[in-house]
Amino acid sequence: MKIFRTGSLHKGRIEAFSDGVFAIIITLLILELKVPGLEGESHDAELAGALIKLLPKFMSWVMSFAMVSIFWVNHHRLFNLLKHVDNGLLWLNCLFLLLLSFIPFPTALLGEYHREPLAVVVFGATMTLASLVFAWMRWYAVLYAKIVQDDLSVTFLKKSVRQSFLLGPFSYLAATLTALVHVTGAIVLYALIPLYFILPRNVEDRDSTRERLAL
Amino acid sequence: MKIFRTGSLHKGRIEAFSDGVFAIIITLLILELKVPGLEGESHDAELAGALIKLLPKFMSWVMSFAMVSIFWVNHHRLFNLLKHVDNGLLWLNCLFLLLLSFIPFPTALLGEYHREPLAVVVFGATMTLASLVFAWMRWYAVLYAKIVQDDLSVTFLKKSVRQSFLLGPFSYLAATLTALVHVTGAIVLYALIPLYFILPRNVEDRDSTRERLAL
Amino acid sequence: MKIFRTGSLHKGRIEAFSDGVFAIIITLLILELKVPGLEGESHDAELAGALIKLLPKFMSWVMSFAMVSIFWVNHHRLFNLLKHVDNGLLWLNCLFLLLLSFIPFPTALLGEYHREPLAVVVFGATMTLASLVFAWMRWYAVLYAKIVQDDLSVTFLKKSVRQSFLLGPFSYLAATLTALVHVTGAIVLYALIPLYFILPRNVEDRDSTRERLAL
Amino acid sequence: MKIFRTGSLHKGRIEAFSDGVFAIIITLLILELKVPGLEGESHDAELAGALIKLLPKFMSWVMSFAMVSIFWVNHHRLFNLLKHVDNGLLWLNCLFLLLLSFIPFPTALLGEYHREPLAVVVFGATMTLASLVFAWMRWYAVLYAKIVQDDLSVTFLKKSVRQSFLLGPFSYLAATLTALVHVTGAIVLYALIPLYFILPRNVEDRDSTRERLAL
Repeated sequence: MKIFRTGSLHKGRIEAFSDGVFAIIITLLILELKVPGLEGESHDAELAGALIKLLPKFMSWVMSFAMVSIFWVNHHRLFNLLKHVDNGLLWLNCLFLLLLSFIPFPTALLGEYHREPLAVVVFGATMTLASLVFAWMRWYAVLYAKIVQDDLSVTFLKKSVRQSFLLGPFSYLAATLTALVHVTGAIVLYALIPLYFILPRNVEDRDSTRERLAL
Repeated sequence: MKIFRTGSLHKGRIEAFSDGVFAIIITLLILELKVPGLEGESHDAELAGALIKLLPKFMSWVMSFAMVSIFWVNHHRLFNLLKHVDNGLLWLNCLFLLLLSFIPFPTALLGEYHREPLAVVVFGATMTLASLVFAWMRWYAVLYAKIVQDDLSVTFLKKSVRQSFLLGPFSYLAATLTALVHVTGAIVLYALIPLYFILPRNVEDRDSTRERLAL
Repeated sequence: MKIFRTGSLHKGRIEAFSDGVFAIIITLLILELKVPGLEGESHDAELAGALIKLLPKFMSWVMSFAMVSIFWVNHHRLFNLLKHVDNGLLWLNCLFLLLLSFIPFPTALLGEYHREPLAVVVFGATMTLASLVFAWMRWYAVLYAKIVQDDLSVTFLKKSVRQSFLLGPFSYLAATLTALVHVTGAIVLYALIPLYFILPRNVEDRDSTRERLAL
Repeated sequence: MKIFRTGSLHKGRIEAFSDGVFAIIITLLILELKVPGLEGESHDAELAGALIKLLPKFMSWVMSFAMVSIFWVNHHRLFNLLKHVDNGLLWLNCLFLLLLSFIPFPTALLGEYHREPLAVVVFGATMTLASLVFAWMRWYAVLYAKIVQDDLSVTFLKKSVRQSFLLGPFSYLAATLTALVHVTGAIVLYALIPLYFILPRNVEDRDSTRERLAL
């Protein structure tokens, strides 16, 4: 009876399903990197040239990998804070996974057409939308449905929702809009955003260890 | 000895395996959305035109994603009600996964030939069959093999089997038959069916919270 | 310290990894079924003709799906009997997964060249080898490394090893050899073998319920 | 509160996510083995010839499979030694998965161009880098962040880090450099390296059973 005791859904299987989707997306991305087909007798020089032409696809793959990793880490942290999952969060999670599972397409598009503003915009818009839906999930769980664990401070929770709306969607949107003016500048911004999340930061001391870990 | 104490199979690994299949299907669907190959110097206008031509494939992807999500949620809920899994349910589950794993094919078919009644019918027929096998699984577990947990009311269980046969298979069949008369009408119906399952409904008060969650 | 108390590896993560591989193989099989490309204005009749030509691929997909499902169920049952996993079984399991993950290739080969004896033989030989390695795993765990749970009767264990060597490898080998004489006959045998495993059988009464479930 | 009691992240979900990535990579490798398309009436002799031409791809698949299996086993063993996972290890693990998920590309490259030094070098360099990052992870967990379980001997831990740096990266690097001089020799070395890890070794008696298992 454990599963329904709190009148809610069990979060373990939703995490497992989401992890499966994350793992598949992150691994499928490489399938876009196709081995070049050389005609006639292939020599090393020719092969080297063909591999160098793949560099934009390679870069687009690394960027997407980093972004999906960050989404996974944040998803993991949000679910760690939850007591249980209700129907609303279940469907928001499905919407989030829909956007995530779309990522292989803009990644391939950017790899193929990295000089076309449209391709650069589609890539950034997908990331903006995904991070917006993720912020929505956090808001829903923390402030609307109130399904987070009881011993978390209100200050911390409100701060985490605010950061979730400001950091991800805002930085991805800024980079996306940059693409309308300067395509290469936008790609550089895309590459910098994951670094911000990965590099260690000084978190203010007033948060407890536990809360610091969840940011 | 926990696993065999009740003379039955452990349901954890079957859920994990099914979740894996669900996660892979839902993520593979996007692979049908191939980046368009443009000839010569590509310009944004040309790329935009090529992307717009992908819209039917995009729609077919979103519909399939929503339907597989719903199957996953319902599978999750059914297994939550079970005490254990017997051999019959094990093989029914394999049959269900066979139909589910077929979905990428009709999805691609619909995306490619959304004006051909045959493609629209094959898509709907797959969903009808999958929801029928799922209703069969529920009937088998609840009324035939009686492997559900002991504290569920008979009224609730019978109702859930009845709904399972009526809602899913019936609505998918109706949409499929519509395709024989009006192709676009059928596609609109396909798009509406998931909404019915996702949007919140008023569940009658006589069911307990727990039972309400499982419907 | 639980994991190493018995001087052994934890079986949970090996099961999870194997389940992942099973789930991916079973779902990837459908990717061989490619939507036919029609030239010019496509009409339903033309599309129907193109779909009918896919029937051999469709049959080869269903057969492989059934065979992989049976391998999964048997793998699941064998691991249920184990106390823990040692290094030998770990690498045997990797060898088994290698053969399993090869299955998409002979499946595609059979779908494409179902009239060529060579394709039919390659398909059967893969299944013969996979079931032979699985029987080897069972023999290793039960009779060689003796890592099964303590309360299983020796009679039952020996019988399960004997059956494992005789049933799977023998029936797949017989079907494979038939292909050298009669190609269609071999395919019919391939289709019948899974049915033998799936349909309910009368298990002799002298086995306990638990042991019956594991056969 | 269990998850954060030690001021750390839960390792279960990171293992599950990594296992998913491992399972997908290992299964995707076979997708490079494409069924040959024969023109006109195909006969067994023609098909046999086409299959024989696939042998280099087949060998490259088997080698990659073995190497990824070994990475999985070592990953599994390292995580078994950990008390918990901190942010540093989390991102090192993402970097390791990035390199792992790249493997399908050099595998396909080697299968296609097994006579080109460049292809052979790219394959070996990928494995060298992946094993180097893995050794880095082990060093980080064991000696830098000190997040291993308390009852492991310092001698054993230092030895395991030393071996991790020497064995994997060193042998892969040696094989990679060989490719600059003798392409076939390098491939033979690639094939031998996994055997070293898989075949049973005499482990010195002064390690406890538990520690022996983790090497």
